[in-house]
Amino acid sequence: MTTEGVEGPQEPHTPPDRRPETPEGTPVAPSGAAPGVSRRGMIAGALWGGLGGAILGGAGGGAAGWALATRDRPDTIDLGSSQPFYGQPHQGGIATAPQRYSMFTAFSMAESATTRDLQVLLARWSAAIAVLQRGDPVGTVEPDSPVQPPKDTGEAYGLSPANLTVTVGLGPGLFGDRYGLARFKPAEFAALPALNGDTLDPRLTGGDLSVQACADDPQVCYHAVRNLARIGRSTVTPSWTVLGFGRASAGPGQDTPRNLMGFKDGTRNVSTSEQYDQWVWIRGADQPWMEGGTYQVVRKIRMLLETWDTDRIGDQQSVFGRDKREGAPLSGQREFDTPDFAATGTNGDPLIPVTSHIALAAHENNDGTLILRRPYNYTDGLDAEGRLDAGLLFICYVNHPEHFVRLQNRLGASDRLNEYIRHIGSAVFAVPPAPAEGHYLAETLFG
Amino acid sequence: MTTEGVEGPQEPHTPPDRRPETPEGTPVAPSGAAPGVSRRGMIAGALWGGLGGAILGGAGGGAAGWALATRDRPDTIDLGSSQPFYGQPHQGGIATAPQRYSMFTAFSMAESATTRDLQVLLARWSAAIAVLQRGDPVGTVEPDSPVQPPKDTGEAYGLSPANLTVTVGLGPGLFGDRYGLARFKPAEFAALPALNGDTLDPRLTGGDLSVQACADDPQVCYHAVRNLARIGRSTVTPSWTVLGFGRASAGPGQDTPRNLMGFKDGTRNVSTSEQYDQWVWIRGADQPWMEGGTYQVVRKIRMLLETWDTDRIGDQQSVFGRDKREGAPLSGQREFDTPDFAATGTNGDPLIPVTSHIALAAHENNDGTLILRRPYNYTDGLDAEGRLDAGLLFICYVNHPEHFVRLQNRLGASDRLNEYIRHIGSAVFAVPPAPAEGHYLAETLFG
Repeated sequence: MTTEGVEGPQEPHTPPDRRPETPEGTPVAPSGAAPGVSRRGMIAGALWGGLGGAILGGAGGGAAGWALATRDRPDTIDLGSSQPFYGQPHQGGIATAPQRYSMFTAFSMAESATTRDLQVLLARWSAAIAVLQRGDPVGTVEPDSPVQPPKDTGEAYGLSPANLTVTVGLGPGLFGDRYGLARFKPAEFAALPALNGDTLDPRLTGGDLSVQACADDPQVCYHAVRNLARIGRSTVTPSWTVLGFGRASAGPGQDTPRNLMGFKDGTRNVSTSEQYDQWVWIRGADQPWMEGGTYQVVRKIRMLLETWDTDRIGDQQSVFGRDKREGAPLSGQREFDTPDFAATGTNGDPLIPVTSHIALAAHENNDGTLILRRPYNYTDGLDAEGRLDAGLLFICYVNHPEHFVRLQNRLGASDRLNEYIRHIGSAVFAVPPAPAEGHYLAETLFG
Repeated sequence: MTTEGVEGPQEPHTPPDRRPETPEGTPVAPSGAAPGVSRRGMIAGALWGGLGGAILGGAGGGAAGWALATRDRPDTIDLGSSQPFYGQPHQGGIATAPQRYSMFTAFSMAESATTRDLQVLLARWSAAIAVLQRGDPVGTVEPDSPVQPPKDTGEAYGLSPANLTVTVGLGPGLFGDRYGLARFKPAEFAALPALNGDTLDPRLTGGDLSVQACADDPQVCYHAVRNLARIGRSTVTPSWTVLGFGRASAGPGQDTPRNLMGFKDGTRNVSTSEQYDQWVWIRGADQPWMEGGTYQVVRKIRMLLETWDTDRIGDQQSVFGRDKREGAPLSGQREFDTPDFAATGTNGDPLIPVTSHIALAAHENNDGTLILRRPYNYTDGLDAEGRLDAGLLFICYVNHPEHFVRLQNRLGASDRLNEYIRHIGSAVFAVPPAPAEGHYLAETLFG
């Protein structure tokens, strides 16, 4: 899902036809073919158009060049830096430049858990998150005692902070009568309604609390969620979780990454502070504890990759409304060209089909609405039929959940992408602002 | 599984008590506690020894220091470099310094597949792997036609090579009568026998071919396996797969990473070329096509993390035979100290328990046997009961499968670690050497 919204930065862009100096592919011919298996026969038997050619022709020698366009500059990841937790206007992991990996987990309150348990949990999680974001193990100032379980599970010992951020959200179920918090419920906050095209798995929906850990090292993400789960284990139980194995959206100054359909995602994401103020951060909240906060919408979107992979490129591009290689809108030449939804071809049809993903999602066609997308690719391996079980952990941040609902209802009804995706998981959470030093998340709920 | 074997490099080691200059943790006290929830009450209610202290005392201020020991040097990952495929004495991904991520997939031959299909597949895979390791998309020298499916799935367009290696293995089932390859079967090559402690899931065992893609970017791994599966899809079907989200073993010059039990893994791994020649590479093979090859043993090992996390540190250390923080054997002080299995404490018991993991696995106690371990951490999220579903994708390389069988039978019978792990997946594959330019993997089988 590449909901459109914003002009991307107009940075200098490496031309896609610039090739770095790499050794040309050397022709490779199977030379030990058995009698009856001629080289020609092997080519004729090629399942995938070009693969016979790949064997004989040194694949990558020509067309592949554009894929190397970004490689004439260093490509390194710096794991050493850390993100602050306390005293920020917002929680991390929202406007933070997207880290490479993530782990999302939804938690359900235990039946026996009380309001006080919830309060203690949020206080403990806040303290632990501050420590984890520094790259330290959770625990006390005293060394572990050999006769007690270790305070920290240990798999991140010695790892760098890796830009870890942990973003905590509160589910709508917390704001009923049970915890005495009904008076704190924002008027517009409720579980998402059934949306067009939903095929949700009940095991992948909702949650009383959400923890989204993002970092440039997946082991750092895993360690954070595992230790927060452990801290909370008599109060909350993990109900569903998704490990994001690669970011699928860019922030300012980042190259636009690709989703598992091979298309760039996030070209027109929210980027300026004005856009954040207008579309992401809550201002003039009916509930003061949410002032400066936002809403997190989580959708687990399975991609039907085998089906997608048999679709011809021309059709794939019509589905998205963009060219696959460069990521340009079909009305333009370059990734950051503004889509022209009125432009027509020689046959009079729009160059960008009206039911393409970008046409349906563009802010131009949705009263200006923008949503901040922060998705990750995921894989769960193979399904029971041996198909690739993979897709997109779509997470977006909006200051009104209704913005997402309207967009998704529109996409769910008409988007040509629907043939190749299934929305299987869904949840919404209220994300309060970050606490000041000496305080904890959502503290005023318990004041 | 941290099977012991070899003295690690005696490199200068950063003292664990050196702390980099980071801001001290500032005391953090919940200040908005509701009436009846005193700070003292929150401390008394701490579930995890130190967490009350974490809230009040600024966790990470003291004991955490040792965890930061390696952070006073830069911590970056260079994604720009690539690994050669053709003309190497061995396939990559074996002696290659372990990359950060991996994706393992076992494939089964389709019922209709012929010997020629297998030959064509190995030729195509070889050509594609050479292209993928360069960081190029699979395909031809011609640009994609818009009326055909794309040759490459596209999610790695623009990504760096990230040190990708793809290691291909052949399962024992290929060497029966069906493909006319029985005469090429190495005498010692067969499916693994039932081993002590096995609790295998039949859906996670065996395979006719294995593809292990390792890279410093998991999206590069995923892309490689996905495209190889696509190339082979009328000949082979993926049967099981594991995405390794973080390496759990080190190579020469690498810091020793940790498994999800929080212990260092790979301190005494195979490292010198003499050790590779003696224990990894096949020399004087009964089947010339395997000369310079090796055997790949794959075990998916689930860890019972919730149980492990409640065990006290002293016991955890006795289970492994090593100290958790430093990784030193219990007979020594530093990670690379040679374990002294004869050393006893004041009570006369061995300092390293005889049923500890390192005592049972050490080459000193196994006729000198070494196995090259190249494992990765994995997670499959939560199981049906909401527990963490995670563990170790254990992969080792040996020049005689019997070496692994003997070690694992010993560990499976007595290892104290067995209380906390379950071997749920298993397979063995013959890994031929790399092809020369103009040739393909295992080509002489079809000569």
